[in-house]
Amino acid sequence: MVILGIDPGYAILGYGLIRYEKGAMSVIDYGVIETTGDRPFPERLELLHTGVTMLINRYRPDHIAFEELFFYHNAKTALQVAAGRGVALLAAQQSGLPLYEYTPMQIKLSVTGDGHADKLQVQTMVKLLLKLSRIPKPDDAADALGAAICHAGSIGPALEEYRIK
Amino acid sequence: MVILGIDPGYAILGYGLIRYEKGAMSVIDYGVIETTGDRPFPERLELLHTGVTMLINRYRPDHIAFEELFFYHNAKTALQVAAGRGVALLAAQQSGLPLYEYTPMQIKLSVTGDGHADKLQVQTMVKLLLKLSRIPKPDDAADALGAAICHAGSIGPALEEYRIK
Repeated sequence: MVILGIDPGYAILGYGLIRYEKGAMSVIDYGVIETTGDRPFPERLELLHTGVTMLINRYRPDHIAFEELFFYHNAKTALQVAAGRGVALLAAQQSGLPLYEYTPMQIKLSVTGDGHADKLQVQTMVKLLLKLSRIPKPDDAADALGAAICHAGSIGPALEEYRIK
Repeated sequence: MVILGIDPGYAILGYGLIRYEKGAMSVIDYGVIETTGDRPFPERLELLHTGVTMLINRYRPDHIAFEELFFYHNAKTALQVAAGRGVALLAAQQSGLPLYEYTPMQIKLSVTGDGHADKLQVQTMVKLLLKLSRIPKPDDAADALGAAICHAGSIGPALEEYRIK
């Protein structure tokens, strides 16, 4: 099974693809889709939508796992990030694949065993679990891999609970 | 010139189409796209995106004018509405048309001459300006017509100022 993890955003969206077979995980690819502030906002949304669609077409994942948005203090940023999440969700929905979502705490708990682990602990475990030679960069890509790993760990009778409703 | 006004949302998105020729406005169509809470959120986003795309394909507007989101007190609702706006902006952007945005105050000022007019004053002026037999319902459709009327009133040397950046 191929799992696409997504850490949504509008300036930077992280993605991570892992293969999960017989309890073993391996990395396929990871990275970010970046959109720069010199482009109008609707064009940035289009780049995000196209980018996610291309990732899905290229790697044909079986499941897509999103990291849930945390709430930003800056209201304007929050609305822009939410719009970015919206077009990423749309691209995922248009693929017809099942979509799942995990909170940052669920991801931390799944990856490290501690729901309050810090960023470096999570990234170190992502590196170990996927047998990478170094911590994946940037942070958004590591977060997306974390979402994919968390999803692999959720596969079982309770999986439906994590479907995006 | 045909102008499509959009009042974004995710449970209900208002739209209003007007023709503006030689200083005269007339209505073409108005209504809402509704998505019900029994569907998963990503499916609701897909319905909104498809709906806006169909409106554009059907009426071939020259310009699209959005009403700017106001800030919701409920953070979860705000993020959902912002995601709905995101996919509506995406559909508009994919059409290649120029996109404009106006604040509720700009729309009120343009439609009624008073930036603090109440909903009924705005709706009454929308009815008068478009020579409708009654106030357009629901409110979201009237708001979308208000955005389109406001845009018609902005056409001139300063129009670029209202492009979505």
